[in-house]
Amino acid sequence: MSDQLSLDSIRSVLTRLEETIIFGLIERAQFRQNRAIYRRGEIWRELEGESLVGFLLHESEKSHAKVRRYTSPDEHPFFHDLPQPILPDLDYENPLQPNGININARIREAYEGEIIPFVCEPGDDRQWGSSSVCDVANLQNLSKRIHYGKFVAESKYRLQREQLWPLVWRGDAAALMDAITDAGVEQKVLDRVYRKTVTYAAEFEGSSCGHKINPEAVREIYRRWIIPLNKEVQVQYLLERVQD
Amino acid sequence: MSDQLSLDSIRSVLTRLEETIIFGLIERAQFRQNRAIYRRGEIWRELEGESLVGFLLHESEKSHAKVRRYTSPDEHPFFHDLPQPILPDLDYENPLQPNGININARIREAYEGEIIPFVCEPGDDRQWGSSSVCDVANLQNLSKRIHYGKFVAESKYRLQREQLWPLVWRGDAAALMDAITDAGVEQKVLDRVYRKTVTYAAEFEGSSCGHKINPEAVREIYRRWIIPLNKEVQVQYLLERVQD
Repeated sequence: MSDQLSLDSIRSVLTRLEETIIFGLIERAQFRQNRAIYRRGEIWRELEGESLVGFLLHESEKSHAKVRRYTSPDEHPFFHDLPQPILPDLDYENPLQPNGININARIREAYEGEIIPFVCEPGDDRQWGSSSVCDVANLQNLSKRIHYGKFVAESKYRLQREQLWPLVWRGDAAALMDAITDAGVEQKVLDRVYRKTVTYAAEFEGSSCGHKINPEAVREIYRRWIIPLNKEVQVQYLLERVQD
Repeated sequence: MSDQLSLDSIRSVLTRLEETIIFGLIERAQFRQNRAIYRRGEIWRELEGESLVGFLLHESEKSHAKVRRYTSPDEHPFFHDLPQPILPDLDYENPLQPNGININARIREAYEGEIIPFVCEPGDDRQWGSSSVCDVANLQNLSKRIHYGKFVAESKYRLQREQLWPLVWRGDAAALMDAITDAGVEQKVLDRVYRKTVTYAAEFEGSSCGHKINPEAVREIYRRWIIPLNKEVQVQYLLERVQD
């Protein structure tokens, strides 16, 4: 099996992404919710119909598309009008089946509408630019973590073809969700994420400034959004999978 | 005195920036040095003479300039051919004297040539895109931290006008460097940065993947580059200051 699909390799990518996600949330939590940066329309009429965060995310994706970020099988853009790469193609090893699964619209909705109020204190501190820069990074990190479900699903499929293929064939999403769910592993992830956040949000002499993140909030973000959306990507991917 | 110039406010900005800088270095340290991303020329001939990192930094600055990042007195671009803001001007409170001090060229040189070999393991893991994205954030964080010396210097000037003005008037850079140096405060910063990195680079079950940063390396980066360059900004700022 391709090295990218070994359970060890997948586990180590996902475990390392926890640091990236927690650091990013801690960074964002130092600022207020700043709802204005998610609003479209009059307030940002110069930004082509986008919010400040949407505008900066779009700009970031345009430049990353030029250097071929979205030709990598573990990267998924939020926008679909991106320029062609200006660098020559890389020969990525791609162990996935061709698929067009991309749930970034739902990730963005959940992040802006639900995760931000969960992580940041209410109100506006006018740190709009800094907050938006954090948001762009966080959205890209969450998207990577959640869409990594494709690798998880492909790996599980190859290991349990006989169990999974009949469910795929019947298009039985509920049974697939059941089959890919491992409550013990999920609990381990939640516990570890909590412990990590306790450590990273430690208080230091002189660090009283800025809101520190609540470790329960990070665990809850994993429980309510990251894990379920990741599993949904897995199920969608399996439902599209063809037999081999 | 303007709130931005109170020593408490400056200290809390700089202390909170330590987290941002340490998190960013830990993120970069999971990848190899990947020297290819700093090279210009043939390897990146599509990138208008820039390295991959330079290209992405330039693109980032172009989009941030459009949303007026560099009209803020605590932000300094690495490139000087940036577009005009498309958003209307904000009325920033700017307690600094007009000045054109920008040492980003030296920051970039130190970061790419000296800090990266200090933080990352040698070699190439082909994680070029991810490494470059970390580098763009790190360069912007370091630039902010180092140029904050302008606020420090203005604050010190207003508190010790009688002591500092004769040195400014004589253009005595060495005496100014002496006058702004507080070895005790520097040692406190170094100790705190070390302790923070020990905490943030903690080992967790299942986090063995990826190179963890060495806390001594982060302390050394503060000692050799961040603190001296910050002080140099202070001296340059004071030398340009006019009496009031």
